[in-house]
This record gives sequence, C-alpha cells and structure tokens, in this order.
Amino acid sequence: MKARVLISPKKGIADPQGTAVEQALHTLGFAGVRAVRVGKVIDLELPEGDHTAALAALTCMSEQLLANTVVEAYSCTILDEGA
Amino acid sequence: MKARVLISPKKGIADPQGTAVEQALHTLGFAGVRAVRVGKVIDLELPEGDHTAALAALTCMSEQLLANTVVEAYSCTILDEGA
Repeated sequence: MKARVLISPKKGIADPQGTAVEQALHTLGFAGVRAVRVGKVIDLELPEGDHTAALAALTCMSEQLLANTVVEAYSCTILDEGA
Repeated sequence: MKARVLISPKKGIADPQGTAVEQALHTLGFAGVRAVRVGKVIDLELPEGDHTAALAALTCMSEQLLANTVVEAYSCTILDEGA
C-alpha cells in the first residue's frame, strides 16, 4: 500500500528557504506570491494490511526519524488506490 | 488562495536520499517499508482569482524555478477551502 508523509516547518518557525524561493519568484515576475513554505514529501510503500495500523506505523516513523518534531509538523496519509 | 506544488524525483531516477531513509527505517525496525522517495512540498498563497489562471501560473513557477524538470516531476494543486 502506498503512503505519504508531508513534513513542513511549524507555524511561527522561520523558513529561510521559503523566503528565498518567495524572493526569487518575485524576481521572475510572480509578484502576488506570499507565505511560501518549503517542506519535504516522503512517498513509500508499506505491506498490505489494516490502514489504522499503517497510519500508526507512519506516525512512529515520523516521530523517530522523518520529522524533526521540534520545528517541523507532519501529516501521514494512505494513498491506497484500491481502498 | 492557498496552493501547493509537490516535487519528487522522476520514476527511474536514482534517489540516494530515499535509499538512505529506507535503510534507516529498516534499522529502526520498520522492515516492511519499500520504495521510499523523498521530494519537496512548497505551499504558497496566491491572490484570489480564477483557479485555471492560478494553476497556469503555478506551472510556470514550477517550470522556471521550483522543479528541475530534467530529473523531477511536479504537480500543482489549489488548496482553496472556500472553493
């Protein structure tokens, strides 16, 4: 089963990368762009099975490795087509 | 209006970061994890207006700056709650 973890900087945490992208977009002429936040998306495959257990495993993975929970927020989703 | 651009390595392109994350997850005991791909998620705000025009602008931003279209694939979505 396919799953996705989205990780982005928590609200209020400075995001220099987002600021740099925003300024570059303004330079390219996309003046109306605001509040750019750059994060990570991790797609992975898990063994078929119960979605609740899969989400719990994803949460553990995020807490232990994928996200720096001090400054990053994460969200886990199952992308299973068949469900 | 809120929008999101998801950028990930194209199929067939090596993803050393994904491989490293996969091995680390296996080491932590998540043995069933496979096909880990690590990409970027860029959230931003655009001026209110026509969604088609906004998607076209997002595509231009992705082609010009946000994605390296040689090795990365991107997808643009409007996250507008009000729609």
